Order: sequence, then C-alpha cells, then structure tokens
Amino acid sequence: MKDINYQSVLDEIIHELAEFEDKGEVASYIPELAKVSPEKFGVYITGVEGQECYTGDYQERFSIQSISKVFALALAFKNMGESLWSRVGVEPSGDPFNSLVQLEHEKGIPRNPLINAGALVVCDVLISIFKNPKDELSAFVENLMGGPVNFNLKVFLSEKKHAYVNAALINLMKAFGNIKNDVEEVLDFYFYQCSMEMSCQELSKAFLLFANKGKIPLTNEQMIKEINSRRINAIMQTCGFYDEAGEFAYKVGLPGKSGVGGGIIAVNPGIYSVAVWSPKLNANGNSAKGMKFLEMLSAKTGSSIF
Amino acid sequence: MKDINYQSVLDEIIHELAEFEDKGEVASYIPELAKVSPEKFGVYITGVEGQECYTGDYQERFSIQSISKVFALALAFKNMGESLWSRVGVEPSGDPFNSLVQLEHEKGIPRNPLINAGALVVCDVLISIFKNPKDELSAFVENLMGGPVNFNLKVFLSEKKHAYVNAALINLMKAFGNIKNDVEEVLDFYFYQCSMEMSCQELSKAFLLFANKGKIPLTNEQMIKEINSRRINAIMQTCGFYDEAGEFAYKVGLPGKSGVGGGIIAVNPGIYSVAVWSPKLNANGNSAKGMKFLEMLSAKTGSSIF
Amino acid sequence: MKDINYQSVLDEIIHELAEFEDKGEVASYIPELAKVSPEKFGVYITGVEGQECYTGDYQERFSIQSISKVFALALAFKNMGESLWSRVGVEPSGDPFNSLVQLEHEKGIPRNPLINAGALVVCDVLISIFKNPKDELSAFVENLMGGPVNFNLKVFLSEKKHAYVNAALINLMKAFGNIKNDVEEVLDFYFYQCSMEMSCQELSKAFLLFANKGKIPLTNEQMIKEINSRRINAIMQTCGFYDEAGEFAYKVGLPGKSGVGGGIIAVNPGIYSVAVWSPKLNANGNSAKGMKFLEMLSAKTGSSIF
Amino acid sequence: MKDINYQSVLDEIIHELAEFEDKGEVASYIPELAKVSPEKFGVYITGVEGQECYTGDYQERFSIQSISKVFALALAFKNMGESLWSRVGVEPSGDPFNSLVQLEHEKGIPRNPLINAGALVVCDVLISIFKNPKDELSAFVENLMGGPVNFNLKVFLSEKKHAYVNAALINLMKAFGNIKNDVEEVLDFYFYQCSMEMSCQELSKAFLLFANKGKIPLTNEQMIKEINSRRINAIMQTCGFYDEAGEFAYKVGLPGKSGVGGGIIAVNPGIYSVAVWSPKLNANGNSAKGMKFLEMLSAKTGSSIF
Repeated sequence: MKDINYQSVLDEIIHELAEFEDKGEVASYIPELAKVSPEKFGVYITGVEGQECYTGDYQERFSIQSISKVFALALAFKNMGESLWSRVGVEPSGDPFNSLVQLEHEKGIPRNPLINAGALVVCDVLISIFKNPKDELSAFVENLMGGPVNFNLKVFLSEKKHAYVNAALINLMKAFGNIKNDVEEVLDFYFYQCSMEMSCQELSKAFLLFANKGKIPLTNEQMIKEINSRRINAIMQTCGFYDEAGEFAYKVGLPGKSGVGGGIIAVNPGIYSVAVWSPKLNANGNSAKGMKFLEMLSAKTGSSIF
Repeated sequence: MKDINYQSVLDEIIHELAEFEDKGEVASYIPELAKVSPEKFGVYITGVEGQECYTGDYQERFSIQSISKVFALALAFKNMGESLWSRVGVEPSGDPFNSLVQLEHEKGIPRNPLINAGALVVCDVLISIFKNPKDELSAFVENLMGGPVNFNLKVFLSEKKHAYVNAALINLMKAFGNIKNDVEEVLDFYFYQCSMEMSCQELSKAFLLFANKGKIPLTNEQMIKEINSRRINAIMQTCGFYDEAGEFAYKVGLPGKSGVGGGIIAVNPGIYSVAVWSPKLNANGNSAKGMKFLEMLSAKTGSSIF
Repeated sequence: MKDINYQSVLDEIIHELAEFEDKGEVASYIPELAKVSPEKFGVYITGVEGQECYTGDYQERFSIQSISKVFALALAFKNMGESLWSRVGVEPSGDPFNSLVQLEHEKGIPRNPLINAGALVVCDVLISIFKNPKDELSAFVENLMGGPVNFNLKVFLSEKKHAYVNAALINLMKAFGNIKNDVEEVLDFYFYQCSMEMSCQELSKAFLLFANKGKIPLTNEQMIKEINSRRINAIMQTCGFYDEAGEFAYKVGLPGKSGVGGGIIAVNPGIYSVAVWSPKLNANGNSAKGMKFLEMLSAKTGSSIF
Repeated sequence: MKDINYQSVLDEIIHELAEFEDKGEVASYIPELAKVSPEKFGVYITGVEGQECYTGDYQERFSIQSISKVFALALAFKNMGESLWSRVGVEPSGDPFNSLVQLEHEKGIPRNPLINAGALVVCDVLISIFKNPKDELSAFVENLMGGPVNFNLKVFLSEKKHAYVNAALINLMKAFGNIKNDVEEVLDFYFYQCSMEMSCQELSKAFLLFANKGKIPLTNEQMIKEINSRRINAIMQTCGFYDEAGEFAYKVGLPGKSGVGGGIIAVNPGIYSVAVWSPKLNANGNSAKGMKFLEMLSAKTGSSIF
C-alpha cells in the first residue's frame, strides 16, 4: 500500500458513488434482516503493515451471514488438512446457491465449502472434531479479530424457523452418508455461525491473516500455514460469490466472500483486506453497491491479482 | 524472477517427477492425437524481463487445441470490448465441457468463452468482424509469438469428421439466435483454430503479454489494454480447466489454460509465463504430469497469486 | 372373465414361471423388509362379478408400501375433487422416484401423486381435511377390503429412521409453500400409510372398485364417481411404476401400482383386479417375477386395455 | 359404437363448443403453418365396423406433422420387432419435447419414439432397412388410408431451414453412436415425413388398424400383429402428447397423438378411431379445441379405456 494514498482513493470513490443508482433490495426472508436501514454504508481497509483507512458506518455491526463460512472453513481445514476434501470439493458450483440438482448428481458431495451444502458439511466436520464447536469457533474468530464476537439470538432463531431449504440439503446429504451427526444439531450450529455480527472494522481485521500468509499481524501468530491461507483465497476467488464468482474475478480480481446481510470481504494477498457493507442486494444476492465499490477500488489502485 | 534460480528449481522438479506415476491416457478420439508419443515432456518458462529456462521437448510442436481459445478470445475482446459479454458469460461452468444441459437452461448463452460452446460463439463473433478471420487470427498469434504459426491440416480434417458434439452445441445456439453466421462456416473456423501447433517455447512467448499487462515485451506493443489482460487472466483462472478449474486454482494458484493435446499454459502476472507439455491426460482431460509439474513449480517458487 | 378359464391360465403361468430366472433382490433398506423370504409368491384375481382365482401365498400379509399411495389418493380426490390438482400434477415423472431435480425445477409441485413427493402432498392434504387422518384412511381401506387392515409398527418406526430422502423432499416443498402442515406430522402420516400390510386376497378385493367404475361390488356402494375411478386408473397407468411405467403399459397394458415390498396390483377396468406378490425387485424397484407374471397373464388372456 | 348415436353426440358437442373460448395460437415457426386459417375445425370418426360420422372441415388436408411419427414407428416396428427397443425406449419423457437434457443424461437413447429425438432414430432405422425409405413409408400409409398420400414440398423445405434444434438432437445422438446414417440424410427423411398432409377423414381411416387389432378393416389385411398394435397404442397413451400425456390420459383416456398442425388422432381399441383438427395450439403445443373436443367426446360416450 506504500505508493498509493488509499484514503484519498476512498474519498474519490465515495464522491463518485454518490451517483450510483442502487437498484438492489434488502434481504427480507427474516424480519431481522428486513429492518436494517438500506442506506447504511461502511468501508474499512486494513494493510498488512498496520495501515488503516475507512469511511461511513464502519463501526456498526451487521449480520455477516455467509461470510462466516470462511471462518468455519479455515478452522476445519486447520484441523483436518487435506482430508477435508473427501467430504467437500473445491470446484465452483455454476448453479444458484441453494440448488439441490448438483448435490444429487454428485452423490451428496457438495462442490465447495462456500455454498450452503458445503458449509453444512464443514459444520458437521467441526461437530465431529470439537466437544464445544460453538465455543471453538468463537475463540478462533475472536483470536483473529482481537476482541469479542457477537451472535444475534433473534437472527439465529429466525433462521431456524425458515430452514426448509437447508433442511432439504442436509437430509439429502445424510441420505448419501455425507453427514455424520444429527441433522438438527448440524443445522443448529450452522445457523448459530450465520448469526455472527461484526463491523467492517472487525471483519477487515479478522480477514487480514489471509492477506498475510496465514499469520495474524498483531500477534505474529501463524494461525494457518501459508500455503493453506493461499488455498482458502483460491477457494474464495472461484467460489465466493455464488453464481457471480466469475464476474467478481473479472471486475474486481480479488478473492472474497459476500453475505446476504450486505457485507463483502475481499483480500489482496500481501497487501490488505477490505470490508464493505451496504444492505441492498443485487439479483445474485450480493451487495450491489459493495460490488461496485470494490470494482472501483480495484481499478483505481491496480489491486487485481491477475 | 529475480530472487529465485528458476533453472535449478526446474532441474529439481524434473528429478522428483521421475517418480511420478502417470496414470493418464493420450487423447484418442482422432488418430493424429492418438499417435503422439506418450513420453513427450517439455517445459519453457519466459520471464517478463527476458529470462528463459526450459527442459525436454520444449522445441517440438504439438497440437495446442483448446489453448487456442484464449487467442481467439483476446482477439475478439480487443475488437468488441465489453459488448462481447452479451453473447457469452464469464462464469465457471461447473459441468463437463461438452454439456448441453446448461446451454439449454441458459437460452443459448454459454457460461464462458473457454468451454466449447463459448469458443464457438467467439468464432462466430470473429467471422462477423473480419473478412478473413483465419488470416487475422494467424497474424494476431504470429505477432505475439514473433514467428510463423503452423496449422495441421490432418488434425483440422479429422476434427471436422468427429464434430457431432460441437455440431449439437452450435445448432442449439443457432436455435436460440446466438450464432449469426452459417453453422458450417463457424465449425470450420473453430476446428481450424484448434489445429494450431506450437512448441512450449512458442506458447510461452505468445502468452507473455498476459504476464506483462497486455504488452508484448519484445516489441513493446500494447496489444490489449492492461485491464483487459487482467480480465482474460481472471477468466482463465475461473474457467480454464473445465471441471478442474477450482482444483487448479487451489493447487497451482495461477491463471492458465489446458488443451487436449497435453499442453498447459499458465501465467504469473508481472513475472512469467510457463508452457508445459505431456500428452497423457487425467480423467478431466487435462495433462496429468503437466498439472503435477505446475503444482510443484508454484509451491517451490511461491508463485501462487493468492 | 366369462370366456376364459382364469384358473387354468393361472396354473399354466405358474408352470411356465418355474423356469423364470429371478435376478431381483429383496429390498434391504430396512430390516423388516430384508428378512422377508425371497421365495414368497402369491396371486389373487377377483372378477367384478365375484369370480376368484388364486395361487401360492395369497393369504399371507406383506408390506404394501407404495401401493397405499393409491388409497390415500382416492380418499383425497374423493374429498377435494379437481382442486387437488393445484397441489400435484398428473404427468409421468420420467425420472427416478426420489429425484429432487424435477421438484426443484417445478417449484415444489410434484409431477404426480404416486411418486414420493406427490404422495407426501396427498398426506398433507388429508391432514388438512381430517381431524384424525390415520383413522379416516383406515376406515376407507377397511370399507374397500371388507375387513380390518393392519399397520406394522416396526416397519413404521424403521421407515421413520431412514427418512432422509423424504425429509429432503418435504422440506423442499415446504420451502416452496406446497406443504401446509408441520413436516414431521406429514412424514409421520406418510410412513404410517406405507406400513400397511395386506394379503394378495385383501389387496385384490380392495382394488376391485377401480375395475368396477368406483363402486364396491360387495356392498354396491358408489365409493368414488365413475369418472374419478377411471381417472385414478389413468394416473396409475402413466405414473404407477416409477421409471418403468411406459414398459408396464407396453408389456402388460393395465393400470397398476407397485410397492417396494414386492407387491403389484393391476386393474382390468370392467373385468377384474389382480394382486401379485414376489419380494425380489428388479433394478427399477418393481417385483421382477410379479412383472413377468402380469405380462404373461395379460398376453394369455388378451387383457391389455390397448 | 352400437348403443350410442355418435352423430347426435357429435352435434351436441359442436353446439356446446360454440362457447369454448379458444386461447390457443397457430404455430408460426414456418410460414406454411402460420397462414392456415385459425378457425378451421373438422372431425371424423370411423368405427371398426364401418360406421362413420363427421363434421366441419373433415375433408380438408392439413399438415399432420408429428402424427406421422406413429406411421414411421409402426413401419419400423413391423420390420425390426423388439430389437427396435435397443435404440429407443418406451418411457414417457417428462420434459418438453425438444429437451436435450434427458438425451444427454441417457447417452443418446431417446426415451420414446414419439419425441423428436426418438422419431429421428426411427427414421435412421428405416433408412438402414429400406433402399427407398420415402417410397416405403408412402406405400405403407397409402395402404392404411386406401388412397394416395400427399407431401407438401413447401412445408418440407421450410422445416429444413429451421432445423437447428433437430440438428442439435441428431448430432448429439450421432456423437453417442445411436445414429447409423448420415445426419443430413436422416434429417431430410424426417422432415419429409413431417410434411405429410391428410384430412381428418383420411387420418381417421389410416389409424383404424390400431382400433382393429392391427388389421385393416377394408382389406382384412393383418398389417401388424395384434399385440404390436396394442403396444403402439400403449406408447401413444404414455408418450403421445409431450408434457401433456398424463393429462390426456386423465381427461380423455384414449391412446392418441397430436401434431403441431393442430391435428389429433385418438384410438378407442376395438371400437373406433377419431381425428380432429383445429389449428390453434395450447401452451404444450397441442390443439386446444381438439383436446377439449376429445375430452367431451370421451365423457359423453364413456369411451375412456380406464
């Protein structure tokens, strides 16, 4: 980040984004997401050498939803290593994120750990490894972000009530023998994980290890091996945006992950991590303004890894 | 490439690869491919600052097949710009490379330009743009590699005889209105393109512009815009290896493209391009030994872009 | 049945079937089905004018499984009339009986009431109509067969333990809004229904109303309208044998329904109903010997309705 | 037909149909079909004992299109016998009639001979059997209808120009090895067959053999075996109306086949054959008024075979 004044780039983008016509819509399948103010907008960029720049609602916590799948994946991968890939693939799905077609076709092995089915398998793996998987996941994330993480009980309970598609997915995988624990227990852990709340600032800090070869900059702790950090980035790049992963690679050129709460995290390996939050989603379920922001940030700073 | 002695890394890998048990099989759907010696093996690495290192059969020409799709894509993109994406997507396919299912589901718009259906659309686009598309493509490629390109007439004719799946694909797209020219003419151009022959040395040089921000190092000519060079790399990363794109990103971490002739090209943006050739293919249709070589090269040199 | 001596035809078939090499396998997904003797074989034919002929284990009760779907359908249709078809179609499925693909594609509306998904919708409908749907179904069936029906508690409990595919199906439909009641309650009723046990004699008698224009011959009660009786026969003809419905129409030419317990019922409208039982199933999940028997019976008596 | 006055039933239906609101649309993919007057309506019923009744434009020839598939099937089946089924199945398709999905999934073996893919295989079979398949087919049909058949050259040429979907289907099957002859030759024969023109009177007479156990009533010639006549009826019943086969069985309860020219033929085994023509098609590509007519005819005469 040495040669570029990120804060002035940030200001420039904010200025230009004022004219961005946001046709997205806030997620409404649970009341807790529906009632978030659609105008919220926050950005936080953290450099691997400690630089920071930010704007807007970067300190306000929001529901990170599917972004949490990356934490769960990192924790499972750290503990299971390569054997994890006998349970879930690393290929992009090329299908809407809830599709059962592919899962049935591929005998209950989800294509990757960032679609719902794959994230459910990761949860199942963590339940098999840990006595208290919820505590372990919390501790892992808190270690990364350097502070306490919050889980939203209302979101958790609401998600559980609307669990039918995920219940279909997990029962199908159970029928194929790819879920080892009780389906209710796995769903419970999955929704718990999805109810995590973080601010852009916290998210950006928590993902910095993926920009820093698996090491937490603050504590210098090698959390996951360098090669595994790169591999998780590779998975984020090819699978992190449902049916828009190719477009994100094309337009932004950074590994990343989005959540239905309107958050997006992106990682520039060796340089920075950036979190952006804007609740209105495009047709593919990704933050419309967040996508646009990252496209502009990447273009103006030449950040694309390609 | 400054801090690493690539030639000694290369020697080290060749030494270790001696124990690699190659279970792949040479492509046999046309006699011209079937009769290639399965033991052929060549590598050529070209740095953006002119460095070169190589081994084995790096000077022998082979059928580059689908690797040629990247040249056609670059030429079409250079001439059409973003409007190209109304005819073909940039999303990974998540399905075997010949599948008609997705094409039918998505109304004749192929998911990306590196699967067969998408490459046929690119050919159709070039036929609409140029009076002599074959000559234009040759000239484009010759400019990149700095020498004459060869087309193998026997391969061309053989491919045309076994064109049924591609004929199915193009007729389906024609039915959806996404092929503007005569289907026979498009197929003819497509198979012409696929019959291109190059050596590892030539391939590596020809792809160097994608490692060099769209500029041909030798002539300093800005062949395609920097941002478009990055975007083609992004497409190679997410779509370049059929149903193994995710695994290639995971294990190698470089944009690339494979061909059924056993060739693979990979690009390390800002640093080098590498071509490897080994005719025996794995179950996904990619060179088995070539994939292994690139995994080792990336690991030993820390080349992953992630 | 006037001009044909069915008993001697029956004897003739039994004689010829002695040479039938039965490559089928007994269903083994639950222990209660797996332990049934594979050599069991029974047949019972009942004519609309009271004729009867039979052979083998025709008095032994077996698990009728999916055959029960026809009873549930008849009861729901009797009460709902044509409005039932807003919830489930009448088209053959053309896909293996558990497939989720089609269900997802068609927004949670199962193609017909004789595949699992459709039968679950029928159960949901009955739960909405009746305070005690289990009692109502029992009473309906008992009225048809003229005696008490038996439900096997062990089968019921075993099925519930292996409910994952059906749980996937019902949750997917619930997500699409096509299940109105609690998914657990519907599954419970569904497995209860499937645990019904009847003998060939009882089955044959219970299905006689479909050969008798909707009227129970014994009591002369018009149970369902003539036209609806024909319509249920039409549904059995096009949808009664999963992915073998066309072949059953082709070879046997009678409406019918099979169950994974090895039972098959077939109806010759205006003439007779026939139940056959042989536990070993072919690759499509239908009784291998039962299919052969019915093909021979139809050929020898010219029973095909076509 | 003894106990029922079909002519007065016919008159009654015509009277009631006056209020039928026909929302269908005339096929428009080729000009020759588009220019047919949408108000045309004709019916012809022929009894196996020589009875006839008719109304409207029953003497006007129209493009029978897919109805011709039944003639080709009967001719191929007569010559090949059961071995035909190694090339094409007898199962309903459960998918729109042009879908390539199922064909790809099932390795180039079409599900039945009445969808386009299956009819192409039948054409391929006839080309392999006969030196002059067009002449043989003409002779076969002329023998059935007792007079000269007409092929419309303009329809034939127009169809060939819009052959893309069928070209996709046949090339895919060729890739799977299920087309033995040149694809162009098979397509040519297929479109020739589809360009057959007949009146309701001629169609009804030509299909009478399927109501008469395979025997032509006029000449008493046993054209196909009784059992094979029944089997073709069974295939018509389960597969004759694309994605509306189940509904036709449900509502009409007779084997039949429709064509995109607005014709429908239905067979009441042992009793009569009926042809109806009304060019406006419903969403499934079947004559809207024709379907309604047959539903009423079946209900009023109790003709359903179920």
